[in-house]
Amino acid sequence: MLAALYTGNQTFVLEQRPARPPGPGEVRLDVAYVGICGTDLHIRHGAMDGRVAIPAVIGHEMSGTVAAAGEGVSRWSPGDRVTVMPLDWCGRCPACAAGHQHVCQNLVFVGIDSGGAMRRSWTVPERLLVRLPPGLGLRSGALAEPVAVAVHDVRRGAVARGERVLVAGGGPIGLLIACVAAAEGADVMVSEPNRHRRSVAARLGFLAVDPSGGDLHATLDQWTGGAGVDAAFEVSGSVAGLQAAAHALRVRGRLIVVAIHSQPVPVDLFRVFWRELELIGARVYERRDFERAVALLADGAIPAGQLISAIEPLERTAEAFEALESGAGIVKVLIDCRAGP
Amino acid sequence: MLAALYTGNQTFVLEQRPARPPGPGEVRLDVAYVGICGTDLHIRHGAMDGRVAIPAVIGHEMSGTVAAAGEGVSRWSPGDRVTVMPLDWCGRCPACAAGHQHVCQNLVFVGIDSGGAMRRSWTVPERLLVRLPPGLGLRSGALAEPVAVAVHDVRRGAVARGERVLVAGGGPIGLLIACVAAAEGADVMVSEPNRHRRSVAARLGFLAVDPSGGDLHATLDQWTGGAGVDAAFEVSGSVAGLQAAAHALRVRGRLIVVAIHSQPVPVDLFRVFWRELELIGARVYERRDFERAVALLADGAIPAGQLISAIEPLERTAEAFEALESGAGIVKVLIDCRAGP
Repeated sequence: MLAALYTGNQTFVLEQRPARPPGPGEVRLDVAYVGICGTDLHIRHGAMDGRVAIPAVIGHEMSGTVAAAGEGVSRWSPGDRVTVMPLDWCGRCPACAAGHQHVCQNLVFVGIDSGGAMRRSWTVPERLLVRLPPGLGLRSGALAEPVAVAVHDVRRGAVARGERVLVAGGGPIGLLIACVAAAEGADVMVSEPNRHRRSVAARLGFLAVDPSGGDLHATLDQWTGGAGVDAAFEVSGSVAGLQAAAHALRVRGRLIVVAIHSQPVPVDLFRVFWRELELIGARVYERRDFERAVALLADGAIPAGQLISAIEPLERTAEAFEALESGAGIVKVLIDCRAGP
Repeated sequence: MLAALYTGNQTFVLEQRPARPPGPGEVRLDVAYVGICGTDLHIRHGAMDGRVAIPAVIGHEMSGTVAAAGEGVSRWSPGDRVTVMPLDWCGRCPACAAGHQHVCQNLVFVGIDSGGAMRRSWTVPERLLVRLPPGLGLRSGALAEPVAVAVHDVRRGAVARGERVLVAGGGPIGLLIACVAAAEGADVMVSEPNRHRRSVAARLGFLAVDPSGGDLHATLDQWTGGAGVDAAFEVSGSVAGLQAAAHALRVRGRLIVVAIHSQPVPVDLFRVFWRELELIGARVYERRDFERAVALLADGAIPAGQLISAIEPLERTAEAFEALESGAGIVKVLIDCRAGP
């Protein structure tokens, strides 16, 4: 079977390898689609070489069908349509013991810390599988993982019907957070300096504003009658985005920290104190978030078709990464891992 | 009646003024004791001259008895023992409309933004009064306000029985937070560089560690079996205290921001994200916090006697401030406002 192998130095090569038969408790999948995540771009740039065992098959956003089930597997049969929740926890650390396995202190993130999905055939432990409901196509199903991120973020933010929500950063995760918050009944504004991303946000039905224009706070004041937003999601990864989000909040508002800030960021703790704000970290997802994600995709609350900008065959993995890096006009790129006719 | 008047430039003068009879909805109090708060020290240093209308009677931690009730006052009679909850809100701003009157966007903090308690006789709106229960002395009752701060902080931190809690900063508010958290059933460690304050914390029954010794994290690791604390209260006002508190937390731990940080502080948002931490601002108190505070004082859960270091008569207000500034060995100083025999 064919696999795309990341070999370091921004390079992917194709390789034929034997498909691995499923062992006890394992399932072999025919991979259908794999999404390219921002983290995969970081891997390509060498920023995660400390975690990725090169040469490596990466990819953690996927859909596929069960091809074969190993010994002791009773819940899955060939033909079942699935996605993988790519978290493998230790079950023994303090975080696991407290029931927070998704942020296990020894977490193996499948597709980064262990082999991923950019191949025709993938053998995984059955415990990672999540069933795709009838009516959810394999293309849309490949978005389950990033949608689960957004579901988790919105749940951590306790977004309620009728609330006003600011999303700082209109990349794929920011747009999905906006979609999930809207599905929860919130009114959503997306703040994003990139014009194309703003146009996508507007097409999805959200207020879309340019924070670099300088009128963000006036716009927010007008939108909220001077009160501030109920919740703000920091998805930009920028200091300016973080500070704008914190400044946008009403008294007792919640700021959900989604983006990765690798350096400490100056935070206006006086405002946190004065307005009794909450800053809430949100990372990956729990199984219930994944299940909610596939349900939202299945019932059309997430317009997957509008978010998938391009689909490239597995043979063109390198080109797919390059297209995404070039950026203009692209939200989500899928790799089609199915064998040709 | 005698009043202590802050006249700017670190100066207090005594003045005789007529007591003001209570108008409709007002009550005239014979003030018993007034505590000196850290904020009062800031006022003395001129740091709050923008809010204090000099010359001013300050003071917002008090106890007293009702001397006379104005027209329409039915709940209060002469001789009733009371304290004042020194918050006067507008009732119309977005924060008030949302039910968060205590952080009203136009809040008048009585004793800072309007006249305070350092006088023999004080006339206040009856809506500010909180009844002292039988068995709670007037000295202990003067601690109701700072205890209410601590009750509010612990409630914002959702501290639960059996949890391990770190208090960064062992001044009066830090010690009261420790006492309230312990009353909620938590195990408490106080981190404080000042040796005397550590000795007070230890005498109150808390683990007391010196963060400047460098072994804080080793101590915390040992104390929590490597998991980290459930909640940490930042009461130090220092960047080091904030960062130590954030670093001390377990996965999903809560950091309650109590101290005032007038400058933005570098916060490790990666850790907030990675461990799904929460930073929670906590400011002043709600009426239920005040009522819980007097209940905790009345049942002895707050050892008021151990926290009151000195009592000075109103005539010696200037000296009382100086004694508190000199610091050594002093936790809380009360001013005795009662007329002499």
